[in-house]
Amino acid sequence: MNILIVHAHHEPNSFNTALKNKAVEVFTQSGNQVVVSDLYAMNFKAIADKNDFKGRSENSHFKYQAEQVYAKTNNLFADDIQIEMDKLMKADVVIFNFPLWWFSVPAILKGWVDRVFAMGFAYGGGKGVYDTGVFKGKKGMLCITTGGPDTTYLPEGKNGDIQKILFHINHGMLYFTGMDVIPSFISYSVARKTDEERTSELIRYEKYLLSINDITPIQY
Amino acid sequence: MNILIVHAHHEPNSFNTALKNKAVEVFTQSGNQVVVSDLYAMNFKAIADKNDFKGRSENSHFKYQAEQVYAKTNNLFADDIQIEMDKLMKADVVIFNFPLWWFSVPAILKGWVDRVFAMGFAYGGGKGVYDTGVFKGKKGMLCITTGGPDTTYLPEGKNGDIQKILFHINHGMLYFTGMDVIPSFISYSVARKTDEERTSELIRYEKYLLSINDITPIQY
Repeated sequence: MNILIVHAHHEPNSFNTALKNKAVEVFTQSGNQVVVSDLYAMNFKAIADKNDFKGRSENSHFKYQAEQVYAKTNNLFADDIQIEMDKLMKADVVIFNFPLWWFSVPAILKGWVDRVFAMGFAYGGGKGVYDTGVFKGKKGMLCITTGGPDTTYLPEGKNGDIQKILFHINHGMLYFTGMDVIPSFISYSVARKTDEERTSELIRYEKYLLSINDITPIQY
Repeated sequence: MNILIVHAHHEPNSFNTALKNKAVEVFTQSGNQVVVSDLYAMNFKAIADKNDFKGRSENSHFKYQAEQVYAKTNNLFADDIQIEMDKLMKADVVIFNFPLWWFSVPAILKGWVDRVFAMGFAYGGGKGVYDTGVFKGKKGMLCITTGGPDTTYLPEGKNGDIQKILFHINHGMLYFTGMDVIPSFISYSVARKTDEERTSELIRYEKYLLSINDITPIQY
C-alpha cells in the first residue's frame, strides 16, 4: 500500500512526532511505501489566498472555490498544492497525525485541507461527495494526542463526546471526500504519561496499524 | 458595549464581508464601540510556532503551550498576539464572522484561536474553564455563511446536524473560555441567493444583533 501521513507538530522530539515515526517504521517494515508531509518542517503555507494560483480567471471578485475549479481545469495550482494533490492521488491510506488543539486540527493542518482538498479536485465540478466521493477506496484515519484525560472526552465528560468533537473532521473532511474512515487512534493526556506508558502507547499504535485492513470503518 | 468582530474572509465584496459590515453599522449606530480584526486584511499569521514569543524558557524541547504560559508571566508574546489579547479583554461581545470551510473555521481564524487563546491567558495556569472560564460575562457568537442549503445541515441531512458540526467551536472554543454562547447566525447557500434575498438576510441579521441581549445563550 501507499501511505500518506500528514503530520502537524512543531517539535521533532514530541510524543506526537514519535507516533508519526512509529507509523513510518511499521508501514515500511511491513513492505509498504510511506510518504510524510511534515507540515512544520515544510513551512507549509496555511492561508488560502490569491497566491495559491499561478493564474486566475478574469473575475475581479475573488471567489476562492471558483478559482480552485479554474485552476484544476487549467493546471494552475501553486506548486506546493499540486505536490500534495499528487501525493493524495497515489495514497491508499491517509493519516492525519496531530495534537488536538481547540477540539480540532492545528491551523497548519486546517490550511492543508482548505488548500489541497480543492473544489474541482476533491469534490465539486461534477464530482461526487460522501459515498460517491473522489477518494472512494482510500482509507482515512486520525492519529491524535490530547492534553486532557480520556474521562473528560466521554459524553458526560466536561469536554463532551470525542466522537461528536471529531465529527467535523471524520465526517466533514475524510468521509466527505469519499474515504473509508478508520476509527481514530487517540493517545490521551500525553504530557502526564511516563516513559513506560509512552512505550506502551507506541506498541498499542503499532498493533492498531498492523490490523488496519481488518478494522471496520465508521458507518455513516 | 464593546464589540470585537474577528473576520475571516478574503474578498471585501463578498456577502460574508457584507454581514461583517452590517454588524459594524448596527452596533455603531446603536451607540456601541466596534473593533474589527480583519484577518486577511491584516495578513494575520496563522501558524503557531517559535516566532510567537519575544523570548522563551530555557527548555530546548519546544512545548507551545508551556511557552505560552511562560510568555504570559514574562510579557513575551509577539506584538500581533498581544494586540488581539488586548482587544479580547476589552470586548463584551466577540463575533467570529467566517465562511464555513470544511465544517469549521478557515485556517486563518483557527490560527487566531490557536495563538491568541493562549494557555495562561485564556485558560490554564491556574485559570478555570467552561463555567469558571476567564471570559465569563462576555458573549460569543458565530456569524457564518455556507455553500450548501439548510436542508443538508439537518440531523438527517447529508452533512449532518449543524449544531453537532459547530459543537467544536461553540462549546470547544467559546464556552471553553467561559463565554455565554449566543446561537449562531447562519446564512445558508449564499452563492445561490438573489440580491433581494441577500438584502433580506442582512435585515434578518440586523434584527438578530439588535436583540442580542435578549437571546438566551446555549445551555450546556
